[in-house]
Amino acid sequence: MTDAGTSSAPPAGLPMAVPQEGLPAQVRIHEVGPRDGLQNEKATLPTKVKAEFVHRLAGAGLTTIEATSFVHPSWVPQLADAEELMPLLGDLAGADPEVRLPVLVPNERGLDRALELGVRDVAVFASATEAFARANVNRTLEEALAKSAAVADRARQAGARVRGYLSMCFGDPWEGPVPVAQVAAIARRLYAMGCSELSLGDTIGVATPGHVTALLDALTGTGDGTTAAGAGAPGADIPGAAIPVEHLAVHFHDTYGQALANTLAALRCGVTVVDASAGGLGGCPYARSATGNLATEDLVWMLNGLGIRTGVDLDRLSATSVWMAEKLGRPSPSRTVRALTHQEQ
Amino acid sequence: MTDAGTSSAPPAGLPMAVPQEGLPAQVRIHEVGPRDGLQNEKATLPTKVKAEFVHRLAGAGLTTIEATSFVHPSWVPQLADAEELMPLLGDLAGADPEVRLPVLVPNERGLDRALELGVRDVAVFASATEAFARANVNRTLEEALAKSAAVADRARQAGARVRGYLSMCFGDPWEGPVPVAQVAAIARRLYAMGCSELSLGDTIGVATPGHVTALLDALTGTGDGTTAAGAGAPGADIPGAAIPVEHLAVHFHDTYGQALANTLAALRCGVTVVDASAGGLGGCPYARSATGNLATEDLVWMLNGLGIRTGVDLDRLSATSVWMAEKLGRPSPSRTVRALTHQEQ
Repeated sequence: MTDAGTSSAPPAGLPMAVPQEGLPAQVRIHEVGPRDGLQNEKATLPTKVKAEFVHRLAGAGLTTIEATSFVHPSWVPQLADAEELMPLLGDLAGADPEVRLPVLVPNERGLDRALELGVRDVAVFASATEAFARANVNRTLEEALAKSAAVADRARQAGARVRGYLSMCFGDPWEGPVPVAQVAAIARRLYAMGCSELSLGDTIGVATPGHVTALLDALTGTGDGTTAAGAGAPGADIPGAAIPVEHLAVHFHDTYGQALANTLAALRCGVTVVDASAGGLGGCPYARSATGNLATEDLVWMLNGLGIRTGVDLDRLSATSVWMAEKLGRPSPSRTVRALTHQEQ
Repeated sequence: MTDAGTSSAPPAGLPMAVPQEGLPAQVRIHEVGPRDGLQNEKATLPTKVKAEFVHRLAGAGLTTIEATSFVHPSWVPQLADAEELMPLLGDLAGADPEVRLPVLVPNERGLDRALELGVRDVAVFASATEAFARANVNRTLEEALAKSAAVADRARQAGARVRGYLSMCFGDPWEGPVPVAQVAAIARRLYAMGCSELSLGDTIGVATPGHVTALLDALTGTGDGTTAAGAGAPGADIPGAAIPVEHLAVHFHDTYGQALANTLAALRCGVTVVDASAGGLGGCPYARSATGNLATEDLVWMLNGLGIRTGVDLDRLSATSVWMAEKLGRPSPSRTVRALTHQEQ
């Protein structure tokens, strides 16, 4: 095995599509690059560049693109221009009713700002741990849940669709391992606020596939012997109302390289909505060295190989991530982007 | 979700061990860093550093460490010191009969050199594609197979254990997709040479989990309705003698970020031997930008989370990879190494 012979182009016809039993036929990618990605990058980009980013992502076939966050500008200066950005995206939401541009709203003031701009999709958030609720929003977990409930309630009254983010579902930098039963209980409360979708976040990237399966089994109420998971499956003994799996999404960070394997475990549980960030944008501020979200390109490579439809054009998406990496002044951490575009690691 | 609060230490007690049904209780890691890793690094290290590397890997609990390659020095100058290296490792093989230090041998001359030094474990190789056989060893596929058969035969007569490597099992830089039936046919011939273990290589890192499952199903003869794979499983219709799964290993490169998800698919098929490279050492010379082998640390993180025993001490292993990265003058590409040691990506 010598290094004779090199190829400059990525091999044509790859990945080969070989479907696997028990996986969905289609996945909707919830692209979080412009929000969760950029909010954790050091650089703050011009509003026009962000708008172009969202347009390019839509051009690559992504239909759900989380555009920004209506938090207080002093919290996340990278996204302080939400009011300026959203009007630049009006053509996207108007052109195709399938295209969604959700925004994160932390409180009623943020919701007001978003609704004034005609936003139809908002996301609220909560933490599965007390420590993170205090660190993130300086509230108790209960106070934070109450705040999200108020926002979700008003958003729904205004006709907006609400997504709930639950952070630290698999581990917490202060509390360490988080019991599945604790996460499941809080997840149910967040979902019950009227969320049309609940995104389970591995904020510090420590989850592994068995843990993912256990939490999903607990939430969907499988493992009772009537499903593929079988009697005695992980999470099966955790009581509570079932959440239909079509309302669950997963949100993995690749800090320990586990994001794609965890996604595979989630797909096997029936999950069909996967959060990812173009080019793997975004760090994790709670683990210094951390890489960011699961890279959308790495996800699309796997889904293409599994014959699972996403509607995403991998080459266009990868080109967008290279363009964004130039704007940010650092190479994309996505392995697929690097391989497709011949960047040295 | 602001960036308030940071933690400098990796969270204690993580990953949480949550076993998953249908996976093995134990995995043997075949560490290829000193051979497959270093042969693809630009730098050539002093022999003493390589010897210390192998000793450190053994100290971290790895029991199968592919030490070097007895190829012609002009082919792989990085490993031209095989004769000098092996005597420095004699204490390891002697101290613990469980410890194996296989070496790669491309031909009978290499085998002679290895056997003279008392090597007990050798590896031969073949390609699943005609194009790679020509590029790698300038022979036809049939010629290369005959050469490996001769080496394997003589090695066994000398009492050595033989591992077979099959390259380009999922895609080839020149030929593109490689049909599963073609790979299975050549794999069976390589195994039939008397290999105690057959390692299926994704040399350019293009595989995805369904493809992995299909090849393993084809080789192990599952998918006939009598196994978990069920009737009509991928690969089930490919005829040929079954290879017991305990004689199969998988060897993934992380070029497109798929290595760990593919490993999970292989574990689900019953595979219990996984090739990996400490710190993700090694590039892939056939894809310019490529990252290297699956990082042993990323693998161990997942296996620890799944409650699968490996005997590896992750902290000691990670420290070894940081030490090696300093010798090579570049950071480890392993996400887990970076996260555990707080290296910026």
